[in-house]
Amino acid sequence: MKIKSGQHLMLVGDSVTDMGRQRPASDAPSEGFAEQLGHGYPRIVCGLLNAVYPERLIRVTNAGNSGNNIRALKERWDRDVIANHPDWVSVLIGINDVWRQFDSPHKPFNHVSPEEFAATLRELVARTLPQLSGGMVLMAPYFMEPLRQDAMRRRMDEYGAIVKTVADESGTLFVDTQAAFDAVLSHRYSGMIAWDRVHPNVIGATVLARALLKALEFDYDREIPPA
Amino acid sequence: MKIKSGQHLMLVGDSVTDMGRQRPASDAPSEGFAEQLGHGYPRIVCGLLNAVYPERLIRVTNAGNSGNNIRALKERWDRDVIANHPDWVSVLIGINDVWRQFDSPHKPFNHVSPEEFAATLRELVARTLPQLSGGMVLMAPYFMEPLRQDAMRRRMDEYGAIVKTVADESGTLFVDTQAAFDAVLSHRYSGMIAWDRVHPNVIGATVLARALLKALEFDYDREIPPA
Amino acid sequence: MKIKSGQHLMLVGDSVTDMGRQRPASDAPSEGFAEQLGHGYPRIVCGLLNAVYPERLIRVTNAGNSGNNIRALKERWDRDVIANHPDWVSVLIGINDVWRQFDSPHKPFNHVSPEEFAATLRELVARTLPQLSGGMVLMAPYFMEPLRQDAMRRRMDEYGAIVKTVADESGTLFVDTQAAFDAVLSHRYSGMIAWDRVHPNVIGATVLARALLKALEFDYDREIPPA
Amino acid sequence: MKIKSGQHLMLVGDSVTDMGRQRPASDAPSEGFAEQLGHGYPRIVCGLLNAVYPERLIRVTNAGNSGNNIRALKERWDRDVIANHPDWVSVLIGINDVWRQFDSPHKPFNHVSPEEFAATLRELVARTLPQLSGGMVLMAPYFMEPLRQDAMRRRMDEYGAIVKTVADESGTLFVDTQAAFDAVLSHRYSGMIAWDRVHPNVIGATVLARALLKALEFDYDREIPPA
Amino acid sequence: MKIKSGQHLMLVGDSVTDMGRQRPASDAPSEGFAEQLGHGYPRIVCGLLNAVYPERLIRVTNAGNSGNNIRALKERWDRDVIANHPDWVSVLIGINDVWRQFDSPHKPFNHVSPEEFAATLRELVARTLPQLSGGMVLMAPYFMEPLRQDAMRRRMDEYGAIVKTVADESGTLFVDTQAAFDAVLSHRYSGMIAWDRVHPNVIGATVLARALLKALEFDYDREIPPA
Amino acid sequence: MKIKSGQHLMLVGDSVTDMGRQRPASDAPSEGFAEQLGHGYPRIVCGLLNAVYPERLIRVTNAGNSGNNIRALKERWDRDVIANHPDWVSVLIGINDVWRQFDSPHKPFNHVSPEEFAATLRELVARTLPQLSGGMVLMAPYFMEPLRQDAMRRRMDEYGAIVKTVADESGTLFVDTQAAFDAVLSHRYSGMIAWDRVHPNVIGATVLARALLKALEFDYDREIPPA
Amino acid sequence: MKIKSGQHLMLVGDSVTDMGRQRPASDAPSEGFAEQLGHGYPRIVCGLLNAVYPERLIRVTNAGNSGNNIRALKERWDRDVIANHPDWVSVLIGINDVWRQFDSPHKPFNHVSPEEFAATLRELVARTLPQLSGGMVLMAPYFMEPLRQDAMRRRMDEYGAIVKTVADESGTLFVDTQAAFDAVLSHRYSGMIAWDRVHPNVIGATVLARALLKALEFDYDREIPPA
Amino acid sequence: MKIKSGQHLMLVGDSVTDMGRQRPASDAPSEGFAEQLGHGYPRIVCGLLNAVYPERLIRVTNAGNSGNNIRALKERWDRDVIANHPDWVSVLIGINDVWRQFDSPHKPFNHVSPEEFAATLRELVARTLPQLSGGMVLMAPYFMEPLRQDAMRRRMDEYGAIVKTVADESGTLFVDTQAAFDAVLSHRYSGMIAWDRVHPNVIGATVLARALLKALEFDYDREIPPA
Repeated sequence: MKIKSGQHLMLVGDSVTDMGRQRPASDAPSEGFAEQLGHGYPRIVCGLLNAVYPERLIRVTNAGNSGNNIRALKERWDRDVIANHPDWVSVLIGINDVWRQFDSPHKPFNHVSPEEFAATLRELVARTLPQLSGGMVLMAPYFMEPLRQDAMRRRMDEYGAIVKTVADESGTLFVDTQAAFDAVLSHRYSGMIAWDRVHPNVIGATVLARALLKALEFDYDREIPPA
Repeated sequence: MKIKSGQHLMLVGDSVTDMGRQRPASDAPSEGFAEQLGHGYPRIVCGLLNAVYPERLIRVTNAGNSGNNIRALKERWDRDVIANHPDWVSVLIGINDVWRQFDSPHKPFNHVSPEEFAATLRELVARTLPQLSGGMVLMAPYFMEPLRQDAMRRRMDEYGAIVKTVADESGTLFVDTQAAFDAVLSHRYSGMIAWDRVHPNVIGATVLARALLKALEFDYDREIPPA
Repeated sequence: MKIKSGQHLMLVGDSVTDMGRQRPASDAPSEGFAEQLGHGYPRIVCGLLNAVYPERLIRVTNAGNSGNNIRALKERWDRDVIANHPDWVSVLIGINDVWRQFDSPHKPFNHVSPEEFAATLRELVARTLPQLSGGMVLMAPYFMEPLRQDAMRRRMDEYGAIVKTVADESGTLFVDTQAAFDAVLSHRYSGMIAWDRVHPNVIGATVLARALLKALEFDYDREIPPA
Repeated sequence: MKIKSGQHLMLVGDSVTDMGRQRPASDAPSEGFAEQLGHGYPRIVCGLLNAVYPERLIRVTNAGNSGNNIRALKERWDRDVIANHPDWVSVLIGINDVWRQFDSPHKPFNHVSPEEFAATLRELVARTLPQLSGGMVLMAPYFMEPLRQDAMRRRMDEYGAIVKTVADESGTLFVDTQAAFDAVLSHRYSGMIAWDRVHPNVIGATVLARALLKALEFDYDREIPPA
Repeated sequence: MKIKSGQHLMLVGDSVTDMGRQRPASDAPSEGFAEQLGHGYPRIVCGLLNAVYPERLIRVTNAGNSGNNIRALKERWDRDVIANHPDWVSVLIGINDVWRQFDSPHKPFNHVSPEEFAATLRELVARTLPQLSGGMVLMAPYFMEPLRQDAMRRRMDEYGAIVKTVADESGTLFVDTQAAFDAVLSHRYSGMIAWDRVHPNVIGATVLARALLKALEFDYDREIPPA
Repeated sequence: MKIKSGQHLMLVGDSVTDMGRQRPASDAPSEGFAEQLGHGYPRIVCGLLNAVYPERLIRVTNAGNSGNNIRALKERWDRDVIANHPDWVSVLIGINDVWRQFDSPHKPFNHVSPEEFAATLRELVARTLPQLSGGMVLMAPYFMEPLRQDAMRRRMDEYGAIVKTVADESGTLFVDTQAAFDAVLSHRYSGMIAWDRVHPNVIGATVLARALLKALEFDYDREIPPA
Repeated sequence: MKIKSGQHLMLVGDSVTDMGRQRPASDAPSEGFAEQLGHGYPRIVCGLLNAVYPERLIRVTNAGNSGNNIRALKERWDRDVIANHPDWVSVLIGINDVWRQFDSPHKPFNHVSPEEFAATLRELVARTLPQLSGGMVLMAPYFMEPLRQDAMRRRMDEYGAIVKTVADESGTLFVDTQAAFDAVLSHRYSGMIAWDRVHPNVIGATVLARALLKALEFDYDREIPPA
Repeated sequence: MKIKSGQHLMLVGDSVTDMGRQRPASDAPSEGFAEQLGHGYPRIVCGLLNAVYPERLIRVTNAGNSGNNIRALKERWDRDVIANHPDWVSVLIGINDVWRQFDSPHKPFNHVSPEEFAATLRELVARTLPQLSGGMVLMAPYFMEPLRQDAMRRRMDEYGAIVKTVADESGTLFVDTQAAFDAVLSHRYSGMIAWDRVHPNVIGATVLARALLKALEFDYDREIPPA
């Protein structure tokens, strides 16, 4: 598994990451029952990493902000990400960049073009990678709509391709969240995993967590070594 | 994996199972974001089963009641368990049966002796097994204290042994939750997974979920088959 | 306009009608600012009917119940509809009958088949029509998804066709809500009018209100006659 | 219809406009179910404009502030109106300017004289019109009292006449809200549309919305063009 | 002053009397700061009677129910009035009997005709007077509208005249609340004493209290006798 | 009656005056039902002045602050009193100056000596009187304990005497609140008018209001003149 | 110390005992931090008994009910006291029996005469004593007023004497709470220990606890014996 | 008893001291029923000191802050302790310094080493002692775990030894809280006095209060002297 003992994994993103997390960002293990990590995929990631690798001391924090597109994320990047000294940074961004083009066509100042999206993501990666002792994970934005002719799905696929391109260019890990959801959606209606095709329930969050952990070479079935 | 498509898995127990579940018992998939399953191990079990086996239609319900010992569980068994027609029943009971002997020695009417515990568990299993198309899982009660000379740990081990005996006798599945926690506690202080050595946080709940799923031969790494 | 002075129009349905209405059903005009009619299409219908036809004394009540399918509606029909002596009854039902087939395939006891849906609707109409001095309006269930190959849209169209058939047979008014939404969806993404393709925001509610009022031959541009 | 695609209509005023709107001002379409526009006439205007003209991308925002007279409105005009770059501005002000003369005769510092009212309105129009790509709508203040000998009705009529004069001088649109209410009040007691003869319920709000939309040449019965 | 030491005065009516009173009816003196009597005229009456006549032990209770017309009052009369053994009963009823005719003309089942009003009031007085050691006070319903050509004012005056007739017939005390308000309204707009011309603020409540106390021959300026 | 039309009476003090008043200070008449004046004697004073003298436009405001002694009152005097331009100022202060000597003998820094009390009161009067077009009323602090040998009663009498002295010196009106309460307490136990012998219930508040209004030559029984 | 290991001490009374206790009555030790015993003297008694005598298993429960006089206590005695099988019963009753005579002289039906008080207390003791393996403690009602000429103090002393008489007759333990408070009140004003001379703050509650524990021969300074 | 009349005892610490105390720090006696001192040992200390020594005027304040380790305590020492001029300061600190090493091994920046702990405590004592007219009490941190081989208990004992060393060096009073708890734990399971072996319930808080008061030579059984 890629994350070493003592490393700090920060999960960054929009409302899909946020899901009611505590502010400022904190990590659950020391605080016990409270819901510091929100009730989305960060909570599941923290639970699995710590339950299966208890001898590694891994810190998981959630820095998602509801409503963020990549432009808003850039504004707070230094304060919320760099300043907290993570070793690993995972980013799931782009859904709002696309969604606003569809639900608010009358407010074009809230739209982020593919060009701006790509340039900003490249900048954030370039600025951050050199400071990480671990690495970076780029998670594609997704839309839980299996019909590819849907206009928003097509647009989301474009942005997902940008994320993959930037990941490939920079040698960071890439998580194809859309493929992970498509596998589930081939069997089930989107309403079983997300009310609005965007915000996952506990099943959808588990799909995201599993996809992210796979990129990190997490081994669910390992034996915990003796002390 | 032992649970077949269309089967209904009901998780029964005390506050460790309950963890703020909705009343009456419901299952999350159809309702989306709401927290019907509470925030303990049933939520994680539901997420993993449905995210990894989406083509099987598995129903997961939570019938835990905070404060229950096996005597209180018996009183509501027909109404809460049998009447809801589960195919699989998992039971995690016994912690309060032991705990009250230590935190309320002055209220002996709240203590459940090993004899009563064993007899009641046998009766519940005997009454229930013939009605299940799937099967039954007995989870041992635990105490997240690694020092075995601790008096309450010793007493809890006695009750765990009873659960194992009943499981062996009746041919039901057995989950050694204490062993699962001991593996973690060999690396970490109990406070990292439970505030009071009983009620697990998200890490402890993941330990429980993983132990239960292992008994069910859950395969985390399987490929989701195409539609 | 079909509704005469002194007549009572009751709007019946599921959460799309309910939208936080007061219980028991009441009508807004006499109570002023309070939100007795909820914030869905019943509120808009009441506002338009009374603002444009002030000299007719029209009573509008909301008898929607969140979560209702036609089976649940039938159970409360006598108590909630017949017993309140409406002159006109408008019914918008069927969305949950279909939706549960998609978001809860594992709970088949919550699904309503086309046969049961048709038979129940016929029975409700037959039982009610003779008691109405005005008439009945049947509104088709809808799904705000413009791609007709979507499985749930196809299924919803089936149920919409049943409603039209029953309306034609019984000579009641029919409102093609799906057509009304399709006209809007040809220009806009569904997210602009409903978060989850079912529950309309104020724009979607206005689409429903306008479609219903058209069936009632409401004349928006009429001059209010002098006293 | 006067409002073109992509234009932004801002509704400015006092509590009659405000009605619990979100702060800062926002527009509903992109946010779905939330009550950003409050529950007064702005909500109805937004619903009708977007439901009937879906192919035009019209943004509707609410900048009403409870308690405002024209003096308070002037203080926040640049910050709340000009700075948000509307294309169309509708203003409904003057009720509090008059009301305070009647309910607080002992607090003359809260009264706005006809002279101050006229001068301020002229100034706001002169300052704003040149910056609008669309235009401005001046709505007369009203009092829902049909008896013209009522002292407050007489005074309100004076202020309404000032609004009409300024509208005529400046070539802006004028909405005679008092006439719209009088038509309804010739058939109904004021208590049916407003508890206190000022704050409209849903019926009164629909009267206001319809009067405003008429000035904008809104066509309720138009066919939505195909995509 | 008519009320003797140890007597119990019960104030009965609708929301004007109720004003948030405690349930069940109680009297303030023994409970201190709590708002058992609501914040309408009963509170002021209790304060003045007890502050000015401390040597008489007078019990004041509030049995007003918001929304009551005389029909609803009759239904609870035995339970709420007779069963509590008052010595004096004051009744202020009739406003809702009239108001519903104006704000809910479409709901005639909520209207109380003058004939029903008179008959019911006569019956209540006849049934009650023989059981009182003190006496009964009938307070006229009122409408705080000084223009007598207003339709609701005219109607209210009819009902006020009925109350006076019944008072005269039965020899009970009569309070002309309309005259008391008219004296104030000759100097001030109704909005200074009641938001909606019905529910008095603290000034309007004081007008009512003073009118009632005058009928009881209350002497505000008396000297409190030494012990 | 001493207060003329258009004058502003401000009531200043501690929690006995405050009693949950709105902040900042406001006056009730224009706002209707809300509880701007709190539920103590200011509310009763406002009600009586306005109900009996409706043709005079009298403004009543409450500037009481819970917990104030004269030292705290002095700190806010300019901001809360002078800056609001009252014509009449009534002050009820001193209870906390004394009370803290008895309930917090261990916190002498919270005690105000008679010397400091007298000097501060003189200063406030001297600073304020020249700015008032009406006048000033000094209300003695009181303790609702009839036994004069009670230590706190004796001490309170000392402070009351200081207030009288300052009133006499400066020619302001004086209200002997202690005498007003003693008259009542000669007939009733203190618990009937105040829970703790300090904070009056509605009866105690009426005693205070009546004492204050007497000093202002209020005539409860006057006829309201015609318009 | 009189209470033996395994015995159950039940504290019965009015609001002084109740002080926000949990319902139904429970005992704190087994539940940890929650405030089951309220925040009055029962909490302090439980803390001291268990901290100083940890090797004895003593159960302490609170059965106080706010507002109770002895008449109300009698009505619930069997259900709340006898049915819970205490070994020791402590009763603190009588304050409301006296208080109502002073704060509600106008409601004589709420007064309990000395004769009724004595007879009822005798009956409760006679009915209960034979069922107790430990014993009974009668605590005198008190009034925290040091001046004995105060009318309510004098009356309370009468009722306290009755309690002493009944205790002497029946050979139960007696606690002179009035003497305990008088010792403190010789040094401090009543407001330091009770806001209203009845409901003790934490200091007053400690006075009560210490007086009760003295009667039970509690030894604060004992050494805890080794295990 | 060491605390003299008029002296101020300030209790400083972490959540064990804080327990919901009011902010800013205050002392209970003057405020009566409110829970200014929280519900931990400071409340019990205040109650016992004032109930048993009423003729001494002793002020007790609580300056505990939940979550504090000695590093955080040092940051606020001047503002919260020195600036409030106590005569006596009691400090209970160190639990969080140790606990974080066990429940957050992955966040070493939150750990306080023995060296830093000792140096900081020495500095605080040296800086404070010269300013105190009374003295200082150092309370050892504790862990309510009787098994001494428990890793956290061993670590806590180290920090307790440091506190004792600093107390001995500086001649301040020392309270061996661990010994006090061990005496209880030899008879009872830790869950009877603290849910999590750290935060005491009312029994545990009484153990702490009694240990602290013993160091102050408090005499529980003294007679209160006459006035």
